Amino acid sequence: MELFQEHGYARTTVGDIAAHAGLTERTFFRYFTDKREVLFSGSSELEKALVDSVLSAPKDVAALDVTIGAFEAVAAWLQGRRDFADVRARYAIVTEHAEVRERELIKMASLAVAVTKALHARGVSEPTASVVAESGITVFRVGFERWVSAKKPGEFVAHIRAAADALRAAATSHPTPSRARRAANQRG
Amino acid sequence: MELFQEHGYARTTVGDIAAHAGLTERTFFRYFTDKREVLFSGSSELEKALVDSVLSAPKDVAALDVTIGAFEAVAAWLQGRRDFADVRARYAIVTEHAEVRERELIKMASLAVAVTKALHARGVSEPTASVVAESGITVFRVGFERWVSAKKPGEFVAHIRAAADALRAAATSHPTPSRARRAANQRG
Repeated sequence: MELFQEHGYARTTVGDIAAHAGLTERTFFRYFTDKREVLFSGSSELEKALVDSVLSAPKDVAALDVTIGAFEAVAAWLQGRRDFADVRARYAIVTEHAEVRERELIKMASLAVAVTKALHARGVSEPTASVVAESGITVFRVGFERWVSAKKPGEFVAHIRAAADALRAAATSHPTPSRARRAANQRG
Repeated sequence: MELFQEHGYARTTVGDIAAHAGLTERTFFRYFTDKREVLFSGSSELEKALVDSVLSAPKDVAALDVTIGAFEAVAAWLQGRRDFADVRARYAIVTEHAEVRERELIKMASLAVAVTKALHARGVSEPTASVVAESGITVFRVGFERWVSAKKPGEFVAHIRAAADALRAAATSHPTPSRARRAANQRG
C-alpha cells in the first residue's frame, strides 16, 4: 500500500514490492499469484471467518439473520484491523483499475459460494441459500461503499445494518402477498 | 457459438471468428473489443430494456417489484430470442473460463449501476436503490442458474419468481422486528 500510494498502482512492479519487503521475486510469487493479489491478502481469512460464523450461529436463527450477522462480525474485525486511510486508498485502486475490480468481483463471488455452502450445511435449501448468501454480499458491499465514501465514516457495521434494514423494508413493502404477510393477515 | 462448440472456446481465435463471418479482423474489432465480448453481444440492448422497464413502471409500484418485474420482462425476451442449447453452451463457457467469468461479473455490476440510476430517477433514495438493484441481479442470476441447470428447464421467468419469493420469505421470516412486522403486530 505504501508503494501503491507513493508511485501509483500501475507504475509499481512486483520487483518493487519484493525489494521493498526484502524478498526475491521468486519468494513473492510463492505468496501471491500476481500484483493484484497483494490487494486481497487476508481474503481467505475473511472467508473462513464468515463461514465459521454462519456454521456456529444458533440453530433457530433465520438464514438471513445468520448471514448478515456473519458479515457484521467480519466488518467489525476488518475495521479493527485496518487503517481507514488504507481502506480508502485500496478502494480507490479497486475502482480505478478494471483488472483489480474484476479480481474483487471474483473474490465476492467466491465468498457467496462459500456462504451458500455453509447455509446448505445448516439445512437451508435452494434457491434460498443462494439468494440469502448473495443478499449478504449485497448488504456488505453497499454498506462498505457507503462507509468508505462517507464524510464521517463512523462504524462500518452501522452501514451494513442500514443496508440490511433497507433490504428488509424493500422486501416487505411490496403489494404481492408473501407467505409471511399472508400469515400475518390471517392472524390479524 | 458454432465455432466455440466445435473447436472449444480457448482454441477459437478472433481470426477464425472473423473468417467464419466473412469479415476482416479489422472489422471484427470495430464491433467487439476482444474475443470474450462476442459472448456478450446484446448486453447493451438488455441494459436498455431493463432501464426502460424500471422507468416506465407505474409510480405506485414498490421499488423491488419494479426491479424484479424488469428482470422478468428481460428474461422472457431473452428466452424468446435464444435457443436453449445455445444458452446452455454459453453458460458452460462462462463457468469454465475465469476470464469470461470476470467479464460476466463486470457486465452484471454495470447492469446493477444502470438499474440503481433508474431507481434514483424514480425517487428511490440510498441505500435502498443500490440494495434493490443488487437484489434484482441476485434474483436474475440465481433464477438463471437454476433454469440453465434444470433437467426440465421450463420458463426462465418461473425460476426468477421462485428466487424472488425465496428472497421475500427470507427477508420477512427473521425474528428482528422490521417496520412492516411491527405494524402487523400492532394490528394483530
